[in-house]
Amino acid sequence: MADEATSIADLRELVARFVAARDWQQFHSPKNLSMSLAIEAAELMEHFQWIDIAESRRAADDPAKLAAIREELADVLCYALALANELNLDLSAAVRDKIVKNAAKYPADKSRGRYNPPAPD
Amino acid sequence: MADEATSIADLRELVARFVAARDWQQFHSPKNLSMSLAIEAAELMEHFQWIDIAESRRAADDPAKLAAIREELADVLCYALALANELNLDLSAAVRDKIVKNAAKYPADKSRGRYNPPAPD
Amino acid sequence: MADEATSIADLRELVARFVAARDWQQFHSPKNLSMSLAIEAAELMEHFQWIDIAESRRAADDPAKLAAIREELADVLCYALALANELNLDLSAAVRDKIVKNAAKYPADKSRGRYNPPAPD
Amino acid sequence: MADEATSIADLRELVARFVAARDWQQFHSPKNLSMSLAIEAAELMEHFQWIDIAESRRAADDPAKLAAIREELADVLCYALALANELNLDLSAAVRDKIVKNAAKYPADKSRGRYNPPAPD
Repeated sequence: MADEATSIADLRELVARFVAARDWQQFHSPKNLSMSLAIEAAELMEHFQWIDIAESRRAADDPAKLAAIREELADVLCYALALANELNLDLSAAVRDKIVKNAAKYPADKSRGRYNPPAPD
Repeated sequence: MADEATSIADLRELVARFVAARDWQQFHSPKNLSMSLAIEAAELMEHFQWIDIAESRRAADDPAKLAAIREELADVLCYALALANELNLDLSAAVRDKIVKNAAKYPADKSRGRYNPPAPD
Repeated sequence: MADEATSIADLRELVARFVAARDWQQFHSPKNLSMSLAIEAAELMEHFQWIDIAESRRAADDPAKLAAIREELADVLCYALALANELNLDLSAAVRDKIVKNAAKYPADKSRGRYNPPAPD
Repeated sequence: MADEATSIADLRELVARFVAARDWQQFHSPKNLSMSLAIEAAELMEHFQWIDIAESRRAADDPAKLAAIREELADVLCYALALANELNLDLSAAVRDKIVKNAAKYPADKSRGRYNPPAPD
């Protein structure tokens, strides 16, 4: 996978250059980018709107469907990277911090197979 | 920035281990994850709901606000990574392919400062 | 049901008075209201994020859960009404026109039990 | 306006008949309908994605744009009505209850021109 050899900074740079070459920073306010993220997430959802959960797990078996989903997920990621660029946020650090916080909220031994946080002791 | 030294695969692995330790793959169907992405994107939007575009650009100046935004963006990314894990998609390749496609749709010389695709020749 | 005796205009008026009493028209631009609608729709989705389709049909059996869903749906409706007020749109006419358009796109005899539009003749 | 002469129940009935004629109740689980609402809300947002707040207020001046917005808003409303049908919720009562609750959270005299709830006394 290219994901092994690609840093988050590599993808950020790719998006930053695309945006700069079109002078699109003027449109890339955090407000607008947050809308764009939500719009692309909704386009991703459209592929799963009417099918049930089991069928959604089989989406990867249909190459045409998977290609369409892959493209929507790329759009989501592009806007996430653009927003990180705009706000100068270190995404890797943000993800690591959030995983640490979630690990405290959902201790593994009390959260196995349960999606709700356990009651406090 | 940690983003320089962190590969996409590193973050995917971090998310995959968190999910596996809680036996949460059962909840992580593509349908559910697409909803989760949209929900987190909406939580990110909430920070910009009532402010104007100029004010949204100043969000980075307020440390408390920026920390809250950073956390929502991390949530978005975690679900994007979880969905890539679930569907076994190479995110870096997907982003690169999408940038190539968008570069054809929005040629730099005809898209400078315009967010609509140019009319076909 | 109060829905029998309440006109769309009655609810619009209720929302308009609430907004005017707080001098909130200044926040109620169409851009902001479209974000608000999406945010409330996402809060509604949260109630169904991790459960399967059959379980979501049983949501109405749990009074506490149903009350929470009802409140989120009310929020969605309030913003839809606020946007109609802002843009001076006749919602009933808009819904009727859309149903007519959808009836042409999804002819009943060719759409029974199928969510995709039929292929054109 | 037709909104003066149309009850919420009238529109609910219109949607219910459309759905029943196509045997679509099978797709109209609350989970799926909540996704549909969010998807349509996002399509509405698309019209305001890159423009600023002042420009969004002028959307009503452009008949083609207004017609497109009106159609997306109708879609949002149709799914809200379909969900109310599915869960057997009285929408008018839900909206009235929510307005009462919001009036307590945002007292008019302390909320004039401010979108945040006032600090508790």
